[in-house]
Amino acid sequence: MTLDAFRTEIGAINDLLCASSVLVWDSRTMMPPGGAETRGLQIATLVRAARDRLLGDAMARALDEARRAVEDLPEDHPDARAVAQTLAAVAHHARVPASLVEARAALRTKAQAAWTTARANSDFALFAPHLAETLRLTRAYADAVGFEAHPYDAMVALFEPGETAASLASLFATLRAGIAPILDEARARPQARADFLTRGYGVEGQRAFGLAIAERFGYDLARGRLDTTTHPFEVSFTREDVRITTRYHADWLPASLFGTFHETGHALYEQNVDPAYTRGTLATDLIGLYGVGGTSFGAHESQSRLWENHVARSRPFWENHLEELKAHFPEKLADVDAQAFHAAVTRVEPGFIRVEADELTYDLHIMLRVELETALMSGDLAVADLPGAWNAAVRRDLGLDVPDDRRGVLQDVHWSSGYIGSFPTYTIGNVMAAQLMDAVREDDPGAVAAMERADYAPLADWLRAAIWRHGRRFSRDELLVRATGRTLDPAPYLRHLATTYAG
Amino acid sequence: MTLDAFRTEIGAINDLLCASSVLVWDSRTMMPPGGAETRGLQIATLVRAARDRLLGDAMARALDEARRAVEDLPEDHPDARAVAQTLAAVAHHARVPASLVEARAALRTKAQAAWTTARANSDFALFAPHLAETLRLTRAYADAVGFEAHPYDAMVALFEPGETAASLASLFATLRAGIAPILDEARARPQARADFLTRGYGVEGQRAFGLAIAERFGYDLARGRLDTTTHPFEVSFTREDVRITTRYHADWLPASLFGTFHETGHALYEQNVDPAYTRGTLATDLIGLYGVGGTSFGAHESQSRLWENHVARSRPFWENHLEELKAHFPEKLADVDAQAFHAAVTRVEPGFIRVEADELTYDLHIMLRVELETALMSGDLAVADLPGAWNAAVRRDLGLDVPDDRRGVLQDVHWSSGYIGSFPTYTIGNVMAAQLMDAVREDDPGAVAAMERADYAPLADWLRAAIWRHGRRFSRDELLVRATGRTLDPAPYLRHLATTYAG
Repeated sequence: MTLDAFRTEIGAINDLLCASSVLVWDSRTMMPPGGAETRGLQIATLVRAARDRLLGDAMARALDEARRAVEDLPEDHPDARAVAQTLAAVAHHARVPASLVEARAALRTKAQAAWTTARANSDFALFAPHLAETLRLTRAYADAVGFEAHPYDAMVALFEPGETAASLASLFATLRAGIAPILDEARARPQARADFLTRGYGVEGQRAFGLAIAERFGYDLARGRLDTTTHPFEVSFTREDVRITTRYHADWLPASLFGTFHETGHALYEQNVDPAYTRGTLATDLIGLYGVGGTSFGAHESQSRLWENHVARSRPFWENHLEELKAHFPEKLADVDAQAFHAAVTRVEPGFIRVEADELTYDLHIMLRVELETALMSGDLAVADLPGAWNAAVRRDLGLDVPDDRRGVLQDVHWSSGYIGSFPTYTIGNVMAAQLMDAVREDDPGAVAAMERADYAPLADWLRAAIWRHGRRFSRDELLVRATGRTLDPAPYLRHLATTYAG
Repeated sequence: MTLDAFRTEIGAINDLLCASSVLVWDSRTMMPPGGAETRGLQIATLVRAARDRLLGDAMARALDEARRAVEDLPEDHPDARAVAQTLAAVAHHARVPASLVEARAALRTKAQAAWTTARANSDFALFAPHLAETLRLTRAYADAVGFEAHPYDAMVALFEPGETAASLASLFATLRAGIAPILDEARARPQARADFLTRGYGVEGQRAFGLAIAERFGYDLARGRLDTTTHPFEVSFTREDVRITTRYHADWLPASLFGTFHETGHALYEQNVDPAYTRGTLATDLIGLYGVGGTSFGAHESQSRLWENHVARSRPFWENHLEELKAHFPEKLADVDAQAFHAAVTRVEPGFIRVEADELTYDLHIMLRVELETALMSGDLAVADLPGAWNAAVRRDLGLDVPDDRRGVLQDVHWSSGYIGSFPTYTIGNVMAAQLMDAVREDDPGAVAAMERADYAPLADWLRAAIWRHGRRFSRDELLVRATGRTLDPAPYLRHLATTYAG
C-alpha cells in the first residue's frame, strides 16, 4: 500500500494543467496575434488530457491503493485530504458528460467574440442570444453535477465551496445594511484632491517602484516575474514559478501600483505553499482544472486585497514609501505629501465601472451582479430584461444612471466566459482579508507595528503559517476557524470600512 | 471511411508537442531560474502524453480507418503520406520500451548537469562516465529501433532520414578533398580587417536592424517575435506562431546579425508550410516528438544557411543594406564601406569553437565530430581516448593545438543531451543550400537579380513553392529531385566555397 502511483498520476495531471497555464500566460503577454486560434486548441487539448487522466483507469487503480494507504491517517492529514479531494474530483467530473464539456468550451469562444463585438458597439442585443445559450448550458451543468436548493449553488461551488445562493443572500444583506451609512457619510465629506495622480507618469518609474514594493512584501523574483497586460493577473506554474502582470496608465498612477500590489498578494500565497505539496492534489484545482495552491477564489482574493488595501492603501504605507515613489517622479509629485497621497487613493466616488471602483463601493458592484446572475440561473430574470434590471440596480445602489450598455451590463468578461458564480468571491475576499487583519492585530500586534514601519516580514510570517503554507489542505472556513476562531464574518470588514471611510 | 478520427488524434498530439515547445521557449527566454526543475517534469509529461496517445487504442482504431480511407489515393498524396508516416512512427515508438525512454530522459538531466560542471572546470573526466552511459543507452536505443549496417545509422535516421554512416563517409570524403585546397588558398591571402566589428555596439540598433532585415526577407511578425537568449534558436507552435531568438555581443557585431538572419531562414520555412497541414502529421515530427513542418534537420538547416550565407553574406546584400546599419551606428561605422564590411564577414580564420567558425572551416568542425561519434557508437573509440582523438583531429583538420577541454571536446551540448547523430545535419544543410541556390539561378535568374536589388520576394516565392509549403510531405531527397533534378550533391557547395573564399 503506497501513494507512489497516486502521486505519479496527480503529478502528471498537475504538469498538464501548469503547462496549460503557461500557454495562457504566454497568450496574454507574449503571443503574436496570429497564434490565437491554434493556441485555443492547444489549451483545450491540455485541459482535456488532464480530465481524461483524472478519469482514467490508471488513476482508478492508484486511488484504490491510495484510499487504503491513508485509511488509518487522521482525516485532515495532508495525504488523507489529497486522496479525498481527488476522489471527490473524479466523482464530480464523472457526472459531467464530455459532450457538455465540449459544448461549453465551444460556446465560450463564440460568446466571447460576440461579447467583444457587443461591447464595442455598446449593444446588448448582439450578446443576448449567446448569454441565453450560456445560461442553458450552465443550467445543464448544474443539473449534471447536482445541487440541493438552487442551480446557482452548483456554480458557486466551483469557485467558493461552502457558499450557496442562500448563504450569499444573508452575507450580502448584512453588507448592504452596513455599507449604506458609511457611504452616506463618505459622500457628505469634501472630496480629497487627486489631480496629481494624472500627471503623465512614465512606465519605467511606475514599474520600478511597484516591483521594489512587491519584493519588500516578500515576492521572490527568483521564482517570479512581472510583465505587462491589459487585464492584470497572477498565475502559478507550481510555487517555483509564480508570475504577475500589471498595466500602466500614464494618466492614472494608481492603476499600475495597486494592480501590482494586488497581484503580489496572490503571488505570495502561491509562492509560499508547502513545497511538499508541489505537483500534488493540495496544489491543484482538480474541479476547475488548473494548477493552483490557494484553497478557494475567495481565500485567494483575501490575500490580494489584504496587501492592496490593508497594507498599501494605509496611511503608514505612504508615510514610509512616498519618498521612494517621489524619487522616480520628483517634479510631478513635488507638491504632494503622504497625507494628501493617502487621501487621494482612498477617495470615494461611485462610478459605473467595477474594476475602477474605490474600496467602499466595490462590493455594491459585486452584489448587484450576484443578485442578477442568481435570478438569471433560476429563470426569475429573462435575458431580455437584464439590461433594464442592471440599470435599475445601479440607480438603486450607486445612485447613477447608466449611460450605455458598454458602461453597464456589458462591462465584464465573466458571463461571456461561462464564469457564472465567480463574482461573489471578490467580496468574500474583502470580508476575509479584514477578518484576518483583525486576527493578526489580536494575535501578533508586533506584526502590525512592524508593518507600519515598512517591515513586512512578520505579517508575511503570520499569513504563511495561517494561510499560505496549507495550500488546498484546509477549506476556506477551516482556515478561518484555525486563524480567527470563527467562520466567515463580515463584522471586521464593516469596521474596517467605517474606520477608513467614515472615520 | 473518413480521416476525421485520425485528424483528431494527430491534432491532439500536435497540440501536446507544440505546448511542450512553448514551455521550452519560455524556459530559454522568460522563465525565472527557480522554475527549472518542475519545468523539466512538465515538458517530460507532455512528450510522454504525446507518445502514449500515438501508441493508444484510439489512434490504432483511427489508423485502421484512415489506412482504408487513403488506399486508393496516389502514394504521395498528402493524406496518404500522413497516414504512412503516422504508421511508421507508431511502429518506431512501439519498438522502444517506455523504460528506455525514461532512462534516456533521466540520464539527459544528469549528463547535462555533469557536462556544465565539466566544461566550467575544463575537465573531461567529470563528464566521461555520463558520456559512457549515454553511449550505452544510445546503443540500446539503436538496437531497439533496428539498423542494417551500423548502430549510428539508427541515430542519424532520427534527424536525417536516408543518411547512414556509410553515405556520410562518402559525402564527407568529397567535401574534405574539395575544401582543403580552398582553405589553403584563403589562408595564403592577406587577412581582411575586422576591427570595426568590435566597437561596442548597443543592443537597440543591432535588434532594430536585424529585425528590419528579417521582415524584408518575409518573416511575418503577426505570427512571430524575436527575443534574446544565450543560444539562438527558432521554434514553431504551428505556422501561426513561429519565434526566433538571437544574442547580442557589443564587441562582435556579426553574432546577433547573422544569428538573426540564420533563425529567420528557419522561421520562413515554418511560417510557409501549407496551412492545410496545420496540426497534422505533415507538420509534426512524430519520430522526434515535436511540432515542426520542416522535413529533416538538414533541410531545415539548408534554409537557415541559405539566408545567412547565400543572401546575407553576399557582397550585394551589404551594398544594399550597409547604409541602414550605419544609420543605427553612424559614428562607429563611418570609415567602413560595403566592400570592407563584406570582406570582414567573409574572413577565414580557423579556430577552436564550432559556433564561432567561418563558413569555410565550419564543416571541418562538423566532420570531425561525426567521425568521432561514429567511432564511439561502434566501440572503435573508447570514451577515455576521446579527448586525445579530438585534439589530434583538430590538429589534422584545422592546424591548431587545442589548449583545454573547454575549447575542445567539451564545447558542444549535443552529446550530453543524447543527440548523437545530429551533427551531420549542419553540413547537409550547407550542401543543400548551395544546391538550391544553383537551381534558383538556373530556374529563375530574375529571382537572383531581384535578391541582388534587395527584393527578396521572388526568392522566397521560389523557396515556398519548392520547399516550404510541402512541410513533411516529401523527404529531403524527394524535394531536391523535384527542385534540382538530383539527390544531395556536394558539387554546387564546393563551387560556392571556391567562388567566395578562393575567388
